[in-house]
Order: sequence, then C-alpha cells, then structure tokens
Amino acid sequence: MRLSKRERQKKLKLSLEAEPFLTDEEMARRFGVSIQTIRLDRMELGIPELRGRIKHMAEKNFDGVRSLYPEEVIGQVTELKLDHSGVSELEIREEHVFARHRVARGHHLFAQANSLAVAVVDAEVVLTATASIRFVRPVRLGEKCVAVARVTKVTSNRTQVDIQTFVEDEVVFQGVFDVYRSKEDQ
Amino acid sequence: MRLSKRERQKKLKLSLEAEPFLTDEEMARRFGVSIQTIRLDRMELGIPELRGRIKHMAEKNFDGVRSLYPEEVIGQVTELKLDHSGVSELEIREEHVFARHRVARGHHLFAQANSLAVAVVDAEVVLTATASIRFVRPVRLGEKCVAVARVTKVTSNRTQVDIQTFVEDEVVFQGVFDVYRSKEDQ
Repeated sequence: MRLSKRERQKKLKLSLEAEPFLTDEEMARRFGVSIQTIRLDRMELGIPELRGRIKHMAEKNFDGVRSLYPEEVIGQVTELKLDHSGVSELEIREEHVFARHRVARGHHLFAQANSLAVAVVDAEVVLTATASIRFVRPVRLGEKCVAVARVTKVTSNRTQVDIQTFVEDEVVFQGVFDVYRSKEDQ
Repeated sequence: MRLSKRERQKKLKLSLEAEPFLTDEEMARRFGVSIQTIRLDRMELGIPELRGRIKHMAEKNFDGVRSLYPEEVIGQVTELKLDHSGVSELEIREEHVFARHRVARGHHLFAQANSLAVAVVDAEVVLTATASIRFVRPVRLGEKCVAVARVTKVTSNRTQVDIQTFVEDEVVFQGVFDVYRSKEDQ
C-alpha cells in the first residue's frame, strides 16, 4: 500500500536523518515512487540534494586532535572542527561525585571543559593561560554532561574558547578559556 | 617618587600582614626596588622568607576539614584554619602531566586549589559557584606545588577564597574562588 504524501515525507525525513547519504534513486525505490516525486518532496522539506548534504557533513567534519593525545581529553569527543568548535560528553559516575552529597566535583566539569578548550585549538602545544568559570547548577550522579566549545577569538598566540556544558537542555557550567599556543608549533 | 627606606619598610611590613604570601619579587615590583633590597629589608625587620612564613602558618593551626572527607582533598593539607586559611601540597607525578611535553595538566592544579578552597570553609555543604584562575607558568614533572588559601570575604551564604600556588618562591597559579555554603548546614 502506498503511503500518503504526508506520511512519506515524514518517513523520508527520518530516513535521511539516519542515513544522510541515501540517493534520490534509492529513496524512490524504497517508497515505490518516482525520482521526480522524491525531488519534489525534498524541495518541500527544504532538504538539499545529496551533494549538498555531503558538503554540509564535510564542513561538520570530525578533525583530529592536535594539541594532546586523544585519550587525554576528559570525556568523549563527539564533534571537532579545529579552531572552530567541538563537543564532548562526560557521564557522571561514582568516581566523579562527593561521597557525601553525590554531587559532581567541580574539577571534573572543569577538566572536561578545559581539555576540550585545548583540544579544539589547531596547534601542537597548547596551554591554558586563564579561565573564568561558573558552576550554574550542581550535577548529580548519572547525569550526562555535554560540553560545547566555540572558538570566539584568535590572536597571534592566543585563542579564546567559550564553553557551555549542558545536561539535557539545561546549562550547568559555563567558562571562558584563554589558551596560548606555542609559536614554534604553528 | 621613591619612598625612603623607613617608609618602605613600614609599608612592606603592613603589606605582609595583609598578604603574608607576597613574594620578594612581587614586593620589589610594587616598591620599585631590587629583590636584594627587599631581602635586606626583611632581614632588618626580622621577617622570614616566604617558605618560612608558610611553615609558620602551618605550625599555628590545624583544624579538621568539615565540608568534605579529608581524603577528598586533592593534595596533602598541611595547614588548615577554618574560615581563615589553609595550605596544601601536591607533587606533580607522571599521572598529572601531558604525555607530550611533561607539563602538568591544568585541571590538577585547579583541583588542588578548588578542593582547598572548599576545605577551608567552615560548613558541611560547600560548592564552588565561580572561579577566576590564572596559570602563571607551566609546572613540570617532579615539582612540588604548595597552594595557599586565604578567606577574603564572608557573606551570609558565600565565601570568597583567594588561592596562590607556589613552586619554591615562584607563583605558578592564582585563583579567586567564590563558594557557597548551604544554609541548613551552618
């Protein structure tokens, strides 16, 4: 049985989120419609053609960390674009909390943010110079902290990185890190 | 205009009463004289060198930590006077340095300072709210970091703690920590 246009467009959108490199041809085959119909669907949904989607992904690309060994980053890096932005995740486990009240110890959130701020910089030798940080709300055992880094300023030997750490939609930590890069390694 | 020796020594004594962990270098800078002059001033005034002043503080008092389990403090607490001051020592070992350049990772110095800032507060529940920190110079494998905390401000539910971390007579890390105490636990 053919899907209604509305149902098909909904499924098409979900499919492309799961498999962004599906061709129009393959989608046409899966939904039992013409390629032209898929193109119209994409246009209505505002989804670019395959080449555009690849380009978009490439821009989002996952760069390699230069400034430290990947295993030295505290948390799991899920996105990294050098000198631009990065994302890492850290789940708060037993070893991260105060024994007494089960709240994450500040230095673990700091370590996640600081190491992401260093990782995002495109240089071999990167050290933190200053940081201004705010613990917005306590983080508890089992919560997943997602740190998002954005490079906000680059000068000859310094990079400023803003970090916001979220648990779900809530900001739990904020920081501005000023890191310096060793010139010899630029 | 340069101060007379007498005026300088008077101001130097007052400065050291307010900020007992000022280095000779910093005082020389402030008074516009050489480090040697400051050393002579101290000798004439009978004020011991920085290491001696830290040791003297340590002998004066040792309270028990209230806000966390003693083993949760990063580093070895050698002096603690609740709501007043504290000192801790951390030797930089293999697990604290970047594999690549053998420099201590910032979050360990932060952890030492942050946990001392929490430990020095006389309350059961203490969490860091904000911190402004500066990594003054890289710390290397084998160096011993002595963090000195001074409580500089107490309001109804907040305590401000200034931290300076030294390697020998050199400041390597500075921070101002604003921590909050849970009211129920006062």
